[in-house]
Amino acid sequence: MNDLAERPVYMDHAATTFMKPEVVAAMAPYLSEHFGNPSSLYRFAAGSRSGVETARGQVAAAVGATPAEIFFTAGGTEADNWAIKGAAFANQERGNHIVTSAIEHHAVLHTCEWLERQGFSVTYLPVDEFGRVEPVAVEAAITDATILVSVMTANNEIGTVQPVAEIGRVAHEHGALFHTDAVQAIGAVPIDVERMNIDLLSLSGHKFYGPKGTGALYIRQGTRVETLIHGGGQEQGRRAGTENVPGIVGLGRAIELATADIEGHNRRIAAMRDRLVRGVIGSIPDCRLNGHPTE
Amino acid sequence: MNDLAERPVYMDHAATTFMKPEVVAAMAPYLSEHFGNPSSLYRFAAGSRSGVETARGQVAAAVGATPAEIFFTAGGTEADNWAIKGAAFANQERGNHIVTSAIEHHAVLHTCEWLERQGFSVTYLPVDEFGRVEPVAVEAAITDATILVSVMTANNEIGTVQPVAEIGRVAHEHGALFHTDAVQAIGAVPIDVERMNIDLLSLSGHKFYGPKGTGALYIRQGTRVETLIHGGGQEQGRRAGTENVPGIVGLGRAIELATADIEGHNRRIAAMRDRLVRGVIGSIPDCRLNGHPTE
Repeated sequence: MNDLAERPVYMDHAATTFMKPEVVAAMAPYLSEHFGNPSSLYRFAAGSRSGVETARGQVAAAVGATPAEIFFTAGGTEADNWAIKGAAFANQERGNHIVTSAIEHHAVLHTCEWLERQGFSVTYLPVDEFGRVEPVAVEAAITDATILVSVMTANNEIGTVQPVAEIGRVAHEHGALFHTDAVQAIGAVPIDVERMNIDLLSLSGHKFYGPKGTGALYIRQGTRVETLIHGGGQEQGRRAGTENVPGIVGLGRAIELATADIEGHNRRIAAMRDRLVRGVIGSIPDCRLNGHPTE
Repeated sequence: MNDLAERPVYMDHAATTFMKPEVVAAMAPYLSEHFGNPSSLYRFAAGSRSGVETARGQVAAAVGATPAEIFFTAGGTEADNWAIKGAAFANQERGNHIVTSAIEHHAVLHTCEWLERQGFSVTYLPVDEFGRVEPVAVEAAITDATILVSVMTANNEIGTVQPVAEIGRVAHEHGALFHTDAVQAIGAVPIDVERMNIDLLSLSGHKFYGPKGTGALYIRQGTRVETLIHGGGQEQGRRAGTENVPGIVGLGRAIELATADIEGHNRRIAAMRDRLVRGVIGSIPDCRLNGHPTE
């Protein structure tokens, strides 16, 4: 116990994680010998290009998508901004209404507030006592003008997991796109964009032992989304800027590791979580748990 | 000579550079022990925070700015998008006209084309036979509705250096903001945002032996620029998203190294350039130099 008492214990993995040694090792060659510009046509750049495409396959496999539906970004925040602004602008001739929840990350909430200043209308759904968004509440909020529903997969503060598949089904029944911010969910909740009726999904490397400044947006094939960052023809002409090759390679390796054994990971974390919750509630008066007891 | 003939020679540093070993070494601790989220308040995150702030000082020093005027981005393309869209949206009640040149990088040109679709008007100035934008042409293009002039510091294909200080002076005389894409210039052209009358300046780490996926936007204090990426309160609330700490640290070290001896660097490069140009023109018929012979 003395030993433990003197060792710092990092308990803010929801804010950011360290990088796994395997991730750093995967990145290492791309910090030195493989430095070519992946957009260059000559053979020397093939190493960078192949690193990026391997990572694209790893991300696609982790969420049940095809590689051509994965677009790398500089993080979850950029992915959220792109998904929501991009879907709003690309579909504004069909309607100007967005449905989201009051407990989304600021990357979603502040983006929606900015869109309100551009003439869009946004409904911020309340949540129940456990932080859940009810699919019937989403359905009740949808109007003829609704073009997008955005509800996170798991909450970043209280951890509640949302009924994403049902919310996605409701959105589709009414002709709206469904975006989910899965930044906090990757590695904890198994994701399948098909089964969960997801059109747009944001993720962020540094939440699952990958590098900071890396993320991705899944865009279902055929989904109309306007570009957020204009310029060169990278990422199928949809997200400009020379690729962060080592970061992308690290993101790919990290998501592969994080999704390899979600069940075992959750069993270990749940046991620690339950012990901590019991210990805190049992020894400090007037404490209560924020969030859902199981979801 | 046999030895040289068999060793590949990388000649596309304008597309991207390798990272200097000093840059990789500066980043290394931030790939492992210093992994805290710089926005966290606890002591453990202080290492990350201080790495980011050291880099901010290094970038500021390299361009003659104060640290509070430097905002980190995921690259030069994002910085260009932010500068131009941000200045356009924030100043649209004053006017809707932008002046730029026909030889800007796609990150500027495609951003301007997108703004045209949002109701802005853009003049694309032609260049002379050496690729130069004439300050008198900028002055002639400015109207009462002009809110922004954007001309690159140095061209990415033919290398021509523009008369930035004079173009900035002309913009200011007519009440317009001046943005320059200095992505290709850092380390080759000494930059002083004061002397050169610059309000907004974009730069990119991987062009001067720093990491890919890193960049910065200089925003002169008091300049009205709308946010491009909304979310958390990072970067004084103006650019959301958890900071790419190792990338930012590498960018800072790289710009410090790149600007330490610009004169000596240019002397070495110019000698190699002249030898190459003489050799090619002297041995291959019908060759001519694209770009300015000295600028």
